[in-house]
Amino acid sequence: MSTPDHRFLRALRREPVDKTPIWIMRQAGRYLPEYRATRERAGSFLKMAQTPELACEVTLQPLARFPLDAAILFSDILTIPDAMGLGLHFVDGEGPKLRHPLRSAADVDKLGVPDPETDLRYVPDAVRLIRRELNERVPLIGFSGSPWTLACYMIEGEGSSSFSRAKALALDDPATMHRLLDTLAQSVASYLAAQAAAGAQALMVFDTWGGLLAPGAFRDYSLRYLAEIVALLKSNPASRKVPVILFSKGANAHLEALAATGCDALGLDWTIDIAEARARVGARVALQGNLDPAVLAASPEAIRAEARKVVDGFGPHTGHVFNLGHGITPDIDPAHVAVLVDAVHGQ
Amino acid sequence: MSTPDHRFLRALRREPVDKTPIWIMRQAGRYLPEYRATRERAGSFLKMAQTPELACEVTLQPLARFPLDAAILFSDILTIPDAMGLGLHFVDGEGPKLRHPLRSAADVDKLGVPDPETDLRYVPDAVRLIRRELNERVPLIGFSGSPWTLACYMIEGEGSSSFSRAKALALDDPATMHRLLDTLAQSVASYLAAQAAAGAQALMVFDTWGGLLAPGAFRDYSLRYLAEIVALLKSNPASRKVPVILFSKGANAHLEALAATGCDALGLDWTIDIAEARARVGARVALQGNLDPAVLAASPEAIRAEARKVVDGFGPHTGHVFNLGHGITPDIDPAHVAVLVDAVHGQ
Repeated sequence: MSTPDHRFLRALRREPVDKTPIWIMRQAGRYLPEYRATRERAGSFLKMAQTPELACEVTLQPLARFPLDAAILFSDILTIPDAMGLGLHFVDGEGPKLRHPLRSAADVDKLGVPDPETDLRYVPDAVRLIRRELNERVPLIGFSGSPWTLACYMIEGEGSSSFSRAKALALDDPATMHRLLDTLAQSVASYLAAQAAAGAQALMVFDTWGGLLAPGAFRDYSLRYLAEIVALLKSNPASRKVPVILFSKGANAHLEALAATGCDALGLDWTIDIAEARARVGARVALQGNLDPAVLAASPEAIRAEARKVVDGFGPHTGHVFNLGHGITPDIDPAHVAVLVDAVHGQ
Repeated sequence: MSTPDHRFLRALRREPVDKTPIWIMRQAGRYLPEYRATRERAGSFLKMAQTPELACEVTLQPLARFPLDAAILFSDILTIPDAMGLGLHFVDGEGPKLRHPLRSAADVDKLGVPDPETDLRYVPDAVRLIRRELNERVPLIGFSGSPWTLACYMIEGEGSSSFSRAKALALDDPATMHRLLDTLAQSVASYLAAQAAAGAQALMVFDTWGGLLAPGAFRDYSLRYLAEIVALLKSNPASRKVPVILFSKGANAHLEALAATGCDALGLDWTIDIAEARARVGARVALQGNLDPAVLAASPEAIRAEARKVVDGFGPHTGHVFNLGHGITPDIDPAHVAVLVDAVHGQ
């Protein structure tokens, strides 16, 4: 059931590869007309994410267009808070919202760790279906939001530019915040292990809001729980051999500490030279990244030149998975993605 | 006409001070009911910014409440593009927009350097009025957006999370982008020198979007023009003795290079320990910052403790101006600002 020799998994293990593997964050997304058609047919984003057949359909769409080296499960980042009873829903043009945000320590104490195979069954079901449909063509990545990122949404009830309510809770009632983050770390580890058991061949944790924390707060409220997740995954027979990728956006000051968690790879945003990142973490982990997503809005010539800079910047080492430094945006022409994939494979 | 011994100016010159000086980015802002009342009376944000009496009124409001160590001119960041004919306006709840964004190299070639005393006369007029009203109580800071930040808005026509159109122009037609940035650097330097001539006692450049650039692009499109502005200000009799503060949000990887521009101080966002920043730039420049603005949403006890960490982190050196790491947000209780100012002065 595994695809052990695929270049994506080889790169994550820091083994030699024939070509630099590439996949793209949000590769199943709004820049693709076929994605927008499925979304329209599904009636809602949530319906699409929670119906294994539809999640499978959009997961596979970019692979039909481009010779990408990995698929990533199509899902939402807030599945765990939803399974905890917070009531995930979407308001058009406003992003995800939670009907019942956490408002007190008592709200936090009521939270349990969801059972992925019952409370979140649509996710492992989607993983099993996608693996079957992929038929060993490329590996499948499972993912989750990080505890800090989930906590931000659970406390605010929606996205925010400052997440000041979440940060104020951490300052005013750190014990409650740590109880919440510990429950979330256990939930994320259990959820990712279930994805691995269902067939996910790599696991990625998106710490989308980690970079909004001051350095001390990052160590206390983000890094510590990322390390707990890695430890839980590496001690669980279902997931211990599955590579784990951590991506803390905007947290380049903490790369060494992130590499020391025991993860297998680090995602990089585009605000650091990949050569510098490589020098700082050495050969402890593979690196995934890190082209500025805005480059895809430029001409094919510029896309090729900028892609080459990233590949050359990483240098003749093992352990590079090419990606953007953040998700692809809806304004991008799919033809430009084809240029990028070709440029990376052609190096 | 100067207030040479005020602790704010002394700190910028890295001279000993009796107490750590403090001011707050956006201190004249929506968290103050009296600001909202003036805004209501003015009828529009732009009217308020472009009427010297109203700009003076809101500039002074926070000083009537708190013993802050500096006033900052109330103005908009897009005054220069407006004076260049791009048609600044505001749509409620959506931030600033430009009616005539740049769409071609020909649009860029048509741009001239505005004359501050004619095309932007309301700004030096406001500076003169505020200085008169301040009557030497505290120094007045003048400011401008950075060339890269202004270029982003001028090309996109509004704010953006990716500024991919601006970045694509830089990749596809770097000569045009450099012409635009050079015109803007000359315009910013001339505008800031006029503010100094009118009485501004310190000058700050907000490079709000510098941190969105990959490292090489930051050096080419942001840093280079910040350095050009500093050089122009330091060679102009009107401004050569006025301290210059550069603030590149999200660009902590570039602190050493920013310090090497010849500026007098660097603004810091909250994602770096101020002790690390101090160690990296040495005594070349003063540092301004860097409390996470979200701390003001926490309890008075937490505000005092976190403020102390920043002051203690800077240590027993000269050259610290306390500030937030970004502007104060509208949700903050003004009573919490009083706690912060008192905590910083009481150290």
